Amino acid sequence: MQTLRSMSELRDLVQALPKTDTHSRDVATERQKILTKPAGSLGRLEDIAIWLASWQGRAAPLLDKCQTIVFAGNHGVAARGVSAFPPTVTEQMVANFRRGGAAINQLCQNVGSDLDVHQLKLDHPTQDFSIAAAMSDDDCIAAINVGIEAVHPDSDLIALGEMGIGNTTTAAAVCCGLYGGDPSLWVGRGTGITDASLALKAELIRDALALHGRRLDDPTNVISHLGGRELAAILGATLSARYQRIPVLLDGFVCTAAAAPLAAISNDALDHCLVGHSSVEPGHARLMGELDKTALVDLNMRLGEASGAALAIGIVKAAAAVHNGMATFAEAGVSEKQE
Amino acid sequence: MQTLRSMSELRDLVQALPKTDTHSRDVATERQKILTKPAGSLGRLEDIAIWLASWQGRAAPLLDKCQTIVFAGNHGVAARGVSAFPPTVTEQMVANFRRGGAAINQLCQNVGSDLDVHQLKLDHPTQDFSIAAAMSDDDCIAAINVGIEAVHPDSDLIALGEMGIGNTTTAAAVCCGLYGGDPSLWVGRGTGITDASLALKAELIRDALALHGRRLDDPTNVISHLGGRELAAILGATLSARYQRIPVLLDGFVCTAAAAPLAAISNDALDHCLVGHSSVEPGHARLMGELDKTALVDLNMRLGEASGAALAIGIVKAAAAVHNGMATFAEAGVSEKQE
Repeated sequence: MQTLRSMSELRDLVQALPKTDTHSRDVATERQKILTKPAGSLGRLEDIAIWLASWQGRAAPLLDKCQTIVFAGNHGVAARGVSAFPPTVTEQMVANFRRGGAAINQLCQNVGSDLDVHQLKLDHPTQDFSIAAAMSDDDCIAAINVGIEAVHPDSDLIALGEMGIGNTTTAAAVCCGLYGGDPSLWVGRGTGITDASLALKAELIRDALALHGRRLDDPTNVISHLGGRELAAILGATLSARYQRIPVLLDGFVCTAAAAPLAAISNDALDHCLVGHSSVEPGHARLMGELDKTALVDLNMRLGEASGAALAIGIVKAAAAVHNGMATFAEAGVSEKQE
Repeated sequence: MQTLRSMSELRDLVQALPKTDTHSRDVATERQKILTKPAGSLGRLEDIAIWLASWQGRAAPLLDKCQTIVFAGNHGVAARGVSAFPPTVTEQMVANFRRGGAAINQLCQNVGSDLDVHQLKLDHPTQDFSIAAAMSDDDCIAAINVGIEAVHPDSDLIALGEMGIGNTTTAAAVCCGLYGGDPSLWVGRGTGITDASLALKAELIRDALALHGRRLDDPTNVISHLGGRELAAILGATLSARYQRIPVLLDGFVCTAAAAPLAAISNDALDHCLVGHSSVEPGHARLMGELDKTALVDLNMRLGEASGAALAIGIVKAAAAVHNGMATFAEAGVSEKQE
């Protein structure tokens, strides 16, 4: 898709999103009923196959090319001591991604996914959102455009994730901006912080909500005033995938929060997305409730880096393999259910 | 391992099981702490890697050869109308497995697992357990030995499953025999039965419990009097894997119930097993509670055929890949957590 020129154009694009291909959906739904298994017995694997068919516009979904994209950004608020790790770790981990030493490298290799890493101005952290808007509109649009351009048009499935020291604070702020509720309901221990740092996270978000006030009624301002560059890029990639009819796997709390403003603009904006895993970070369950999403796996993970989304690629591939490869009752000469 | 000659020998073997390799476990545990991620942030993936190391006796677990084994049997009780499908479907589905048309074929291919299928005297169903012992000791021992011999000594991981029309009734009976509770707490709709059939399932189990009485105090009698051949084979394969130090993934309700008598004989007998998925069949959650197990995935599946275990192979492979492939903080030059 084309890159974005203004935040108001973003609103227009989200209000004119492409819908599912109902023909492919219906053909896939009928096929699930005649495969050699009791109807419904593969549970969510059946739903996932139909979802893939609906968005790819192919009754037999393809997963030849899976693309995992990790966006990295730095946050002004990190200087306030909201993480157990120093901000320099963002750049160090990007180097680790590029050398193949991080968890996400092994997880992508395990499921046969490509991995692309985009770093967004790591030496220029966003502003501390408790004392200023995190990003100007232009800065935010540039970050969204990195995400829009990162989605490869040939991809059959996109898995999204992030790296950014301090960004669970950013994600909690975005959720507060979109859904309200006291910041203490949205913050968690991230990489493993103390009680004092946890209280500080909530306090900084309270300051931000007071500072930015009614401007946050507009979801596009939530992105720019409270978000971060890697979150804006995830939002851009999610939007770009929708316009290219590519299904998306979101990762944990930060990644899901990054995409959430799209749903605040248009209720069906994340229908082409599944949440890969349920994070330990307590805000994630709350956020999935707001978005009416149920994660594919729940393994007590809280790493980010698209790790939960990449893990879920294996589940999605299984769903497609079953859908495309199984014999029907007629083909296999298996007796059907007795009425 | 050697095949079994008597049911009393089974009891002796289960009381002398090999334990974990604590050295490999400790080395793997230490390694998890220095990989480039916040400690604990990969949640159960970390636990799985340490579990693999403990049982394989290798600090760096291998998963080159995964073996999925499906055992098929027929049940006298199926003639009473406890399934939505006719008993002939067991053999038809075995043929479907052999031709590659079933769900389990696609799921094994998706994760790179071998698939072996063993059919156990399909033309001679077990006795109806509500009017007689399902199997004689000799018949039961023969079935256990099929399982013992099915485990390939070179396998790095075993995934187990079953096919047998009527066998959720058998599994519920085994659970009642081991743990008590009214049969209505253990039965479910299996392939999709009516309310009347559901009530009949519970009633037949009540009859069986009254008939076999105190003989069921001995878990080895629970296997032979209430079980089925494919369940006995799963038990044999689980035992054989333990003696060969091969970790095991159990499938859903029937498969977990098949292995449960081992834990009734010796509390730690299933420590080398994880439950691949949580089945929709309501007895499964109750059974996992008795065994203190939490499934790896929960996707509303209820197919059997080792489908949930095979799906979970992907998760276990991810855990091993991360454990073996990630860089340490020192190797990657990444700053550690600030105290």
